[in-house]
Amino acid sequence: MAKLKLPVPPGFTISTKVCEYFYENNKKIPKKIIQQAKKELAVIEKITKKKFGDSSNPLLVSVRSGSKISMPGMMDTILNLGLNDKTVLALKNKTSNGRFAKDSYRRLIQMYANVVLGIEAHFFEELIENYKLTKGVIQDTELEEDDWDGLIKNFKEIIKEKTKKDFPQDINEQFLGAISAVFLSWNSKRAKTYRKINYIPDHWGTAVNVQTMVFGNMGENCATGVAFTRNPSTGKKELFGEYLINAQGEDVVAGTRTPKNLISMKKSMPKIFKELKKIFHLLENYYRDMQDIEFTVENNKLWMLQTRSGKRTAKAAIKIAVDMVQEKLISTKEAVLRIDPNTLDTLLHPTLDEKTEKKIIASGLPASPGAASGKVTFSAEEAERLKEQMQDIILVRIETSPEDINGMHAAKGILTARGGMTSHAAVVARGMGKPCVSGSSEIKIDYENKFFISGNYKIKEGDMITIDGGSGKVMLGKVPTVKVDISGDFSKLMKWVDKFRKLKVRTNSETPIDTKTARDFGAEGIGLCRTEHMFFDEKRIISVREMILSKTLSDRKKALSKLLPYQKGDFLEIFKIMNGLPVTVRLLDPPLHEFLPKTDKDIDDIAKALNISHNDIKARIIELHEQNPMLGHRGCRLGISFPEIYEMQCQAIFEALAQCKKQKIKLVIPEIMIPLVSTAAEIQILRNLVDNIAKKIQKEHSIKIKYYVGTMIELPRAAIRAKDIAKYADFFSFGTNDLTQTTFGISRDDSGKFLNDYVDNKIFNKDPFVSIDERGVGELIKIATERGRDQKKSLKLGICGEHGGDPASIEFCEKSKLNYVSCSPYRVPIARLAAAQAYLKKKIKI
Amino acid sequence: MAKLKLPVPPGFTISTKVCEYFYENNKKIPKKIIQQAKKELAVIEKITKKKFGDSSNPLLVSVRSGSKISMPGMMDTILNLGLNDKTVLALKNKTSNGRFAKDSYRRLIQMYANVVLGIEAHFFEELIENYKLTKGVIQDTELEEDDWDGLIKNFKEIIKEKTKKDFPQDINEQFLGAISAVFLSWNSKRAKTYRKINYIPDHWGTAVNVQTMVFGNMGENCATGVAFTRNPSTGKKELFGEYLINAQGEDVVAGTRTPKNLISMKKSMPKIFKELKKIFHLLENYYRDMQDIEFTVENNKLWMLQTRSGKRTAKAAIKIAVDMVQEKLISTKEAVLRIDPNTLDTLLHPTLDEKTEKKIIASGLPASPGAASGKVTFSAEEAERLKEQMQDIILVRIETSPEDINGMHAAKGILTARGGMTSHAAVVARGMGKPCVSGSSEIKIDYENKFFISGNYKIKEGDMITIDGGSGKVMLGKVPTVKVDISGDFSKLMKWVDKFRKLKVRTNSETPIDTKTARDFGAEGIGLCRTEHMFFDEKRIISVREMILSKTLSDRKKALSKLLPYQKGDFLEIFKIMNGLPVTVRLLDPPLHEFLPKTDKDIDDIAKALNISHNDIKARIIELHEQNPMLGHRGCRLGISFPEIYEMQCQAIFEALAQCKKQKIKLVIPEIMIPLVSTAAEIQILRNLVDNIAKKIQKEHSIKIKYYVGTMIELPRAAIRAKDIAKYADFFSFGTNDLTQTTFGISRDDSGKFLNDYVDNKIFNKDPFVSIDERGVGELIKIATERGRDQKKSLKLGICGEHGGDPASIEFCEKSKLNYVSCSPYRVPIARLAAAQAYLKKKIKI
Repeated sequence: MAKLKLPVPPGFTISTKVCEYFYENNKKIPKKIIQQAKKELAVIEKITKKKFGDSSNPLLVSVRSGSKISMPGMMDTILNLGLNDKTVLALKNKTSNGRFAKDSYRRLIQMYANVVLGIEAHFFEELIENYKLTKGVIQDTELEEDDWDGLIKNFKEIIKEKTKKDFPQDINEQFLGAISAVFLSWNSKRAKTYRKINYIPDHWGTAVNVQTMVFGNMGENCATGVAFTRNPSTGKKELFGEYLINAQGEDVVAGTRTPKNLISMKKSMPKIFKELKKIFHLLENYYRDMQDIEFTVENNKLWMLQTRSGKRTAKAAIKIAVDMVQEKLISTKEAVLRIDPNTLDTLLHPTLDEKTEKKIIASGLPASPGAASGKVTFSAEEAERLKEQMQDIILVRIETSPEDINGMHAAKGILTARGGMTSHAAVVARGMGKPCVSGSSEIKIDYENKFFISGNYKIKEGDMITIDGGSGKVMLGKVPTVKVDISGDFSKLMKWVDKFRKLKVRTNSETPIDTKTARDFGAEGIGLCRTEHMFFDEKRIISVREMILSKTLSDRKKALSKLLPYQKGDFLEIFKIMNGLPVTVRLLDPPLHEFLPKTDKDIDDIAKALNISHNDIKARIIELHEQNPMLGHRGCRLGISFPEIYEMQCQAIFEALAQCKKQKIKLVIPEIMIPLVSTAAEIQILRNLVDNIAKKIQKEHSIKIKYYVGTMIELPRAAIRAKDIAKYADFFSFGTNDLTQTTFGISRDDSGKFLNDYVDNKIFNKDPFVSIDERGVGELIKIATERGRDQKKSLKLGICGEHGGDPASIEFCEKSKLNYVSCSPYRVPIARLAAAQAYLKKKIKI
Repeated sequence: MAKLKLPVPPGFTISTKVCEYFYENNKKIPKKIIQQAKKELAVIEKITKKKFGDSSNPLLVSVRSGSKISMPGMMDTILNLGLNDKTVLALKNKTSNGRFAKDSYRRLIQMYANVVLGIEAHFFEELIENYKLTKGVIQDTELEEDDWDGLIKNFKEIIKEKTKKDFPQDINEQFLGAISAVFLSWNSKRAKTYRKINYIPDHWGTAVNVQTMVFGNMGENCATGVAFTRNPSTGKKELFGEYLINAQGEDVVAGTRTPKNLISMKKSMPKIFKELKKIFHLLENYYRDMQDIEFTVENNKLWMLQTRSGKRTAKAAIKIAVDMVQEKLISTKEAVLRIDPNTLDTLLHPTLDEKTEKKIIASGLPASPGAASGKVTFSAEEAERLKEQMQDIILVRIETSPEDINGMHAAKGILTARGGMTSHAAVVARGMGKPCVSGSSEIKIDYENKFFISGNYKIKEGDMITIDGGSGKVMLGKVPTVKVDISGDFSKLMKWVDKFRKLKVRTNSETPIDTKTARDFGAEGIGLCRTEHMFFDEKRIISVREMILSKTLSDRKKALSKLLPYQKGDFLEIFKIMNGLPVTVRLLDPPLHEFLPKTDKDIDDIAKALNISHNDIKARIIELHEQNPMLGHRGCRLGISFPEIYEMQCQAIFEALAQCKKQKIKLVIPEIMIPLVSTAAEIQILRNLVDNIAKKIQKEHSIKIKYYVGTMIELPRAAIRAKDIAKYADFFSFGTNDLTQTTFGISRDDSGKFLNDYVDNKIFNKDPFVSIDERGVGELIKIATERGRDQKKSLKLGICGEHGGDPASIEFCEKSKLNYVSCSPYRVPIARLAAAQAYLKKKIKI
């Protein structure tokens, strides 16, 4: 590819390696670099001399940050470096434009004081404003050379007062100060926060670009502007930018003057406009991407200062990628690689109307995207009651538990005071595609008196609030939302995505609604159907409780037989929707106490309904209480202790299939999954149980059913003993939530208490519950994969933890040669895209 | 070694492999074996013919189990096989002893009916007893041939009635029935239970020994007996046995007649006695171990029926081993290998007086050995109060928590209704060397009304009970105990032990008393000093709580400064006792909420003492509450969030050392241990913290202190990332309790709910919290060992979990090339012995 010939002011770059050195050596710039820079500057000096004559020796350069992406808090540019009390006069003489020279000098002093010397900008701005008031003028451009002379004097006094030093007249000092300021801004608080939020590595560092100055402020045939080669908001192929006549860069950005739409340049500077359009076209063809551009016009000559790939909305990204394929600018592969999968989230959920003003009253973690408004309620029951009255509800809880499921279903959104990105509330909400803000530690909930306090706000039950699960913000009142249109471009792109994808994408779902949504989003099967979620329905929970409170096997079986038709019906509905695709059904997983009532009132109700004494129920609750339920009597341990529970569930699965057969519905292939296995013996015993039930039902209905039995690998021991376990398993599904919990020894429900300290101390770069920990958990997955396939080549491998919807983790799954990922319905398109990208990246590397 | 020439009746053995076949093939004996047996029986037949003449064809054999060890529930012997209605007459004719022949026949029918046909013995015994009553005789020997004829008829009728079949006249049927019965008895309920308790593998199976009959019941010059070559109770070298004139084997064992002391045979059968003594000597020399022997005298001829190594008490085992070394019968190595380390426990703790009658009211797990009697109390505070009144207390709790530590210290013993062998109560009690029965699910505690119910017993506060932590029994009233004397033999043996041992043995201890005990038992350092246990003292807990309830860093530091002198004092005392040995100090580990009060009353007290509102404390308790505290904000996570806590602890350690220096006490080498590390970054940050404090204190006191910093490897991720972590660690200590919990995903506090199901289903052969799971947890230890040493060859490796005192786990530690094990004080001698055995076994294998 030939280098582009563009009107760029001569200059040079100081690399990011110097930034690294700078931080490792007590914030010093290496001597070698200084010497090299001086040589380069000598070249620029020559050019400057040629331009302005050589009597005054002015060295006029700009210094700007060269970081890969623009980042809030990063220093952008210092212009007019090289001016001092002497050279400013030379510049005046040579240009015969005193106003221009002094304007440029005052700009340098102002910028330098702020950016390098750390003096707040308002001191200078106030001086200018007051001066204009006194003089009775409105625009800066109305000020003359004399005016600037006076202000320059005042500026210098401020610097002296604040730093006890004079503004540096030494050109080298100015120059080194500017470079250091760029490096220092890499670690400004705002830049660090931005990187933390966006997972940008701290070690990248920034480069520094040094350029010969060109001036947009030399008069009316001068200008400066910024532009995007396409509309960054819609993606439309149109000029999009702003400019100012007789101005320097910061005037456009700072808002002191109102810039004009670039289109108007067609009239004001037609030659330049034409040239600019041509260059935009060249740049897009060269970089094959939409560009974000800065330019300056000096005495009717166009200079290009900077270009980089422009930031854009998800919608724009898709439109641009699809358009560029049609323009034959990029290939479909490149189009697929261009879209950040995480940004799709904003397309799939309704978003808040940007135009409305918002009163933010609290913030928390952006746990499940989308926006929702509703009346505050503090109990799941109340949420259900109000839902029946067709009211919109936001369920506000300290934290949620499986008991709240129905209330969560009834609510438009969920707000919790505790819990991380993978707390119960967050996981369930994402599964339901419902907006959720979790762990909003600012809010203090008083359940008894039904209100919460946040800062100065007191929000009572029934008050209207809005939550934005994409940003974690909580707002007063109802903020209108807009449903983003998933245009034809989206589906075009997804077709290409599926062409390049090797990993299958399934969904985690256990309700007909979710299953339907996921299918619409392109899910190729269910990777995790959590049967316990089917137990919380009001009509069923009573039988579940009866079962748990049974004292004899026969009583337990009686209660289970009441659950059988419900469970069978659930499966039947799901199987119909999945129409022949694989469905992984996980047998009962949570400890039984999760199903028991918590309050005395609830206990009384159950006692009456089941004709058991209040004390008996209480005794059973105490008996079942666990210190660490995550590590307790759950998963296959229940199946070992109470085989009758798993037997009922298997019976429901196979009878539902028999029913499908009768109704001539295409049979799904059930993959029955035994949870929390840590030994081969467990799966051996329980596989046996499944096979026996399967035999029985097949015989009863005289049919043949194809099914698989497998296990979740969610405990370190299961990974290590994968070879034994694979003897009895047709598939492994990595339950990376629990595997991460046990590998790190961290309870995700409790991790909120120290996760921030861990990120601040750089112990975690990323929450390991969000993106898979490749070096620890990942190694266990690799061990299990190798050992499992070593035992059984045909072993099917998937992942069904929260990580199944995280692009970075999906890339790991592709590298680890898994067969599929499974994620919540709303993340299915994200996973499809991420899977395609992972495959393409792997191929590129090979 | 030449084969011994002994008067053994000819016979043959059916191997354990047949037992395996038997169970794998629907309980059938292979035809090949039947044919082989018939050939062998033909040989025996010849001998019998020779003995009794050949007219009647009698085949007289005994069939007995040939299992490696005698086991309750296993069939022992069936004698007189081959007798039927015909052959019994032949035997009568040939011996001219009708009474003998009929007595032998009725014995066969009786034994066969019971053992092979499964008819309860009492049916036959009652018949005999009633008959004797009618006839007015007392001893069986007073019955004549006619009497037995009648009884034989009655016996046959019982068999017919119960089995609807006649007693088998077919000699082959009898024979096969007897063999099957031996095999079947391998899986009798009692045998299975015995194996489960004693960790004897189910797959061993039993052999069957078939021998030509010799008769001890042919008259007054006949006898039968059992003997040990040394006293199995004391180990003394003396004849120890019993015999009966004119009797068959089961008479001695069954207790129907009172056998005579073997010594009296010197008078009654002097020739036989002399011969027997000679044979005992031969056997001991041949087998080089104390023998358990069965013999029969037939018409003044001695026959040896069986010999095997005899069971013995721990005390006897030591005496026999030491004596045999002195007799030059075995080497010191063999002596060391002879003692089962687990049995030492009974020597180190006082035991219940065997002679006293006991009223057992409940039973639980034998959690911590030793016996104790005391008044029942249900609260730790009450236990402390009564201790001050010099009363003996048994603390009875549903389960214990760290808050109960002082009460546990005050109590003589601990009884809990919940919790396994490694529950809090069990672990702490073992550490304290206090008897404990845990998980006694029979007892129902009513805290409010201060009593517990067990079966028909209602035990109120203040009632006296006795617990036996060695057997798990709970008894009514005070049962007197005896302190077993640790004789000179014990210390002789331990000297040999230390000669062969490579693994160092340290102790887990944090009190001066425990430290002293451990030193007396031979501990070579402290492997785990849990600093949090030092916080529960009444005077300190208030400052601990103040620290936790602090809202600002400076308040927290103020509270910590109050704890500093206590902590420093603790270390000083321990350092003095350890006098130069290494001491591993673990920095604070449990989550902070463990230190907060639980009841409203306690909260009120704290609120008053600290001048904080009740609600503020309650809010903080709610805030700190965790779903899964085991996986929560604990270990080094506290050190990251609150570095000031670890700083105070390090200051205490180094200042205590400075104090030692001043007092000219030999400096211990502190090994400062960072708990719950899962990433290299954690230990890097905290090692830095330790180093900084060390520098500061060394400078302040102008001294040089040698110390190490290391970590516990107690999370799977730590094992996997051991190479990175070893960069910043001088040592690893495997915390196998937590490593087992996280590797299996099992909370040991909650595992009691399903552990039994797991053992019953053979998923666990042994509780993995008792004996290390070599295939899972063990592999992680191996990975960590290899990767850690790969990074740092000098890395010191130890184990400080409960497994450090378990012989099987110690063998694994030796195989894995660890440097030391650390266990509770009372297990130090056990660990020393196990370590020596592990080393010797490894050498033998190589």
